[in-house]
Amino acid sequence: MNRLNELNLDRPLDMHVHFRQGNMLQVVAPLTAESFAGAIVMPNLVPPIRSLEAVQAYREAILKATQGRNFTPFMTLFFWAYTDAELEAAADQITAIKLYPAGVTTNSEEGIGDLFAARTTLSAMEELGIPLLIHGETHGFVLDREREFLATYDRLAREFPRLKIVMEHITTREAVELLDRHEHLYATVTLHHLLITLDDVAGGLLQPHLFCKPIAKRPEDREALLQAVLQGHPKISFGSDSAPHPLSAKECAGCAAGIFTAPHALPMLAELFDRHQALDKLQGFVSDHPRAIYSVQPAPKTVRLSRTPSVIPPNYGEVIPFRAGQTCAWSIEDIQ
Amino acid sequence: MNRLNELNLDRPLDMHVHFRQGNMLQVVAPLTAESFAGAIVMPNLVPPIRSLEAVQAYREAILKATQGRNFTPFMTLFFWAYTDAELEAAADQITAIKLYPAGVTTNSEEGIGDLFAARTTLSAMEELGIPLLIHGETHGFVLDREREFLATYDRLAREFPRLKIVMEHITTREAVELLDRHEHLYATVTLHHLLITLDDVAGGLLQPHLFCKPIAKRPEDREALLQAVLQGHPKISFGSDSAPHPLSAKECAGCAAGIFTAPHALPMLAELFDRHQALDKLQGFVSDHPRAIYSVQPAPKTVRLSRTPSVIPPNYGEVIPFRAGQTCAWSIEDIQ
Repeated sequence: MNRLNELNLDRPLDMHVHFRQGNMLQVVAPLTAESFAGAIVMPNLVPPIRSLEAVQAYREAILKATQGRNFTPFMTLFFWAYTDAELEAAADQITAIKLYPAGVTTNSEEGIGDLFAARTTLSAMEELGIPLLIHGETHGFVLDREREFLATYDRLAREFPRLKIVMEHITTREAVELLDRHEHLYATVTLHHLLITLDDVAGGLLQPHLFCKPIAKRPEDREALLQAVLQGHPKISFGSDSAPHPLSAKECAGCAAGIFTAPHALPMLAELFDRHQALDKLQGFVSDHPRAIYSVQPAPKTVRLSRTPSVIPPNYGEVIPFRAGQTCAWSIEDIQ
Repeated sequence: MNRLNELNLDRPLDMHVHFRQGNMLQVVAPLTAESFAGAIVMPNLVPPIRSLEAVQAYREAILKATQGRNFTPFMTLFFWAYTDAELEAAADQITAIKLYPAGVTTNSEEGIGDLFAARTTLSAMEELGIPLLIHGETHGFVLDREREFLATYDRLAREFPRLKIVMEHITTREAVELLDRHEHLYATVTLHHLLITLDDVAGGLLQPHLFCKPIAKRPEDREALLQAVLQGHPKISFGSDSAPHPLSAKECAGCAAGIFTAPHALPMLAELFDRHQALDKLQGFVSDHPRAIYSVQPAPKTVRLSRTPSVIPPNYGEVIPFRAGQTCAWSIEDIQ
């Protein structure tokens, strides 16, 4: 089989990204907007985005920070017990609603305790066709949190049979398996969970820049994610969960969770898919699947990648990217 | 049952400690010597201690750094293919020989690859009654390393039926169970593995000061260690594995493994044993068991502990101790 030396990606999307606020937004949003046609922007700001006014203000700030880059931010609300009227008003302003169990990750302190107490909100979302994105972890032992949450996905899927439910950043074999149990259950997978295991985080020296939530799991879990993605599983979209923190919040006595992958995500994905002779599956993962699942319409944008080495910068301002200073076998050649 | 408010420990020992070299030795050795009557000092210096001259020089440096504190350093050699003659000459200078599989922890790069290639050394140790202390981890996935090494302990115990073998700093339920399978198999347990799990290291913010090797495991593993120790298992000795690193090697992009517990280890152990109504088992863990197992004779020293709160200092020079700044319910009252 001829190896491809180039690959054109049509409207690549990142279905899970953190842009933060203020100066951090100014640094990171343009980096995503550079190579992606659109991205689902997470609402876990301080305070979280829980009103249409906040959605609009955040969208404007993002559009301003990314202007000239032909980029569509897909906005989200932070899950809450919204009324039908609130959801109807929001429906054409947002792409999805993101649910965080209280306290499970960065800026999730205001998340909801009992999901099923917000039954009317979930029914209204089902009626309006608003997807529910979930950070699916319990408060259990760190390695068991995703596995323990699977029963909640399962119950949600049974009780709301037309609600689109996206299991965000899945990390376990069991989550991959659950995906096939309900037609309306979907998933995003990050770049880093396709590449690292807990061994990379804590097997040698401890690596704060590889620390994220959910934490990377066992080799057999990574393998299950990789196989599903490389075989073109149509219910899985790319969501980087690119989550910037300043150096001072990573190399310190209590390191924040989050890996910053956005700027180099596409070349690194190309390198990974190429290594597994699966380049033909990348377009689906980064664009065709999410366009079908979320019914989003990004503006036209074509990213041409080539098998030409590129070096990942040591930092972007205060933020250290994933694999800083290392070489990736692929590059972005051109963006139209 | 009356709760004890005070406890006298007769000749408390730490059967696994890292004193390092140079300035670090000057900072940390006196802190151990203050409250312990003796300690097994690990030989993983740079270069490792592999000659009698190096043992003697290191002992002298330790005695100088700890003078006036009535403390006996129990010296060790770094495991190597020593000849019978070397071992005979060393026998009355050392308490044990420490084996590191190559590259598994701090300064173990010079460790041995194939243990069973050094069969004559192991036989000679058996004849001479020199205990073999082992950092028992494979190069496998970080959570499986100890479990995978258990077969090696088992084989060693079968092939060398009179060799005293100590499984250092055990962290798993399975290691506790193995202990009862061979009469001549022993273990040390650290303070931190009785207190923390992987959740404490990586379940919230990532905690470099709680990062060690072997890495802390699951709650059920900690529980197995705790039950064995609190029930006074006679084959388990306290070994702190207190392992100092400067702040700059902990709060950085690649954090070194090691937790510094030595100065407050005895009050923290008293607090833990007290909480579980097992204060009567502490003397065995920190002194009676190791004196019987290793046949060591420390000089007389009595440490009186009391149930009086003490605050753990924020740092000792460049080293951040375990639970820096926190309060321990017990204190050292007097040392005679």
